[in-house]
Amino acid sequence: MQFSSSLLENAVNEFAKLPGIGKKTALRLVLHLLKLDTGHVNQFSDIIAKMRSEIKFCQRCFNVADGDICSICANSMRKQEMICVVENIRDVIAIESTQQYNGIYHVLGGVISPLDGMGPDQLNIESLLHRIQKEKTEEIIFALNPNIQGDTTIYYIQKKLQPHHCRVTTIARGIAFGGELEYADEMTLARSLQNRLPVESYVSGR
Amino acid sequence: MQFSSSLLENAVNEFAKLPGIGKKTALRLVLHLLKLDTGHVNQFSDIIAKMRSEIKFCQRCFNVADGDICSICANSMRKQEMICVVENIRDVIAIESTQQYNGIYHVLGGVISPLDGMGPDQLNIESLLHRIQKEKTEEIIFALNPNIQGDTTIYYIQKKLQPHHCRVTTIARGIAFGGELEYADEMTLARSLQNRLPVESYVSGR
Repeated sequence: MQFSSSLLENAVNEFAKLPGIGKKTALRLVLHLLKLDTGHVNQFSDIIAKMRSEIKFCQRCFNVADGDICSICANSMRKQEMICVVENIRDVIAIESTQQYNGIYHVLGGVISPLDGMGPDQLNIESLLHRIQKEKTEEIIFALNPNIQGDTTIYYIQKKLQPHHCRVTTIARGIAFGGELEYADEMTLARSLQNRLPVESYVSGR
Repeated sequence: MQFSSSLLENAVNEFAKLPGIGKKTALRLVLHLLKLDTGHVNQFSDIIAKMRSEIKFCQRCFNVADGDICSICANSMRKQEMICVVENIRDVIAIESTQQYNGIYHVLGGVISPLDGMGPDQLNIESLLHRIQKEKTEEIIFALNPNIQGDTTIYYIQKKLQPHHCRVTTIARGIAFGGELEYADEMTLARSLQNRLPVESYVSGR
């Protein structure tokens, strides 16, 4: 792509560095910004820079936070005895969007995956064990993606949790709502048969 | 979507204002920026803000420019007697990418479209006529999108150009390279039959 302005070219190149944004999309975004007032564009750029420089990670659960403790941990209305263990911030946002969970979180920062060079030491596992020692915890819920890495991580942490007497659960795996039985893989279908629910609890749970 | 940090939420909202970027994509982009160094993110935000505040429009052809005159107009190697009339900056970039055009441009800033409230007075048409009076112009090439608005604009400007004795042409309309005859619309197919080319010029033109 040939540009008659190096300012335009630099801006397009910066946008094109973002994941999933190609040169053509980057150009479209930049030309959109070019149509806005300078004030609006300055606001856009300030908010991005401020976000990166001022954002913190919660010292307790490693979720993003505006201060030392995130708004979920600081919320005394939430059950502080129930910890949901997730891989990353995106999973926290996904679970929060369901508005069905009223406990707190622990963000691991990844899952155990030797092929990607991710061992237990690079994850926030030690701090989870510290939390359970210090805090009164009744239940640990694993909400990790259902794959080999996720299951390995659950297995590893669960072993470490054994000395602590708290309930350890994992979110249900099964046929997704709206999914079709005939297209489900064998593993999912087998597990959803093993972990079948009494109909009364299914109906009342909706 | 629920966020535990207002800094994160503001950044996601800013990205989601861009065309074609929804909340989920915005979140993905912001979380990507969050993984980068503060320095990189500041560079991103500075380049965007600088682009908007410092970019200029060429006083001659209305293309984007770093100074008063764009690099295409300022390039003495290009044929200054040949002006390609385009709708917007994106079209300049598209034509430049072909590396087949060696003249200069005139960016109209739109096309005549009464339904969208775009009349001839809102476009850079007067300045085109001024240019032709002042500069020695041999050929005007219309490279507008082949639709009613584009054709109306060509008709309007061509009428105004009649007192000036220069060649007025338009880019060829026809079956696109790689296209299939059976799926072409009647208008395109009819025009490509009317404007058929001698095979020798077609072969040598490749």
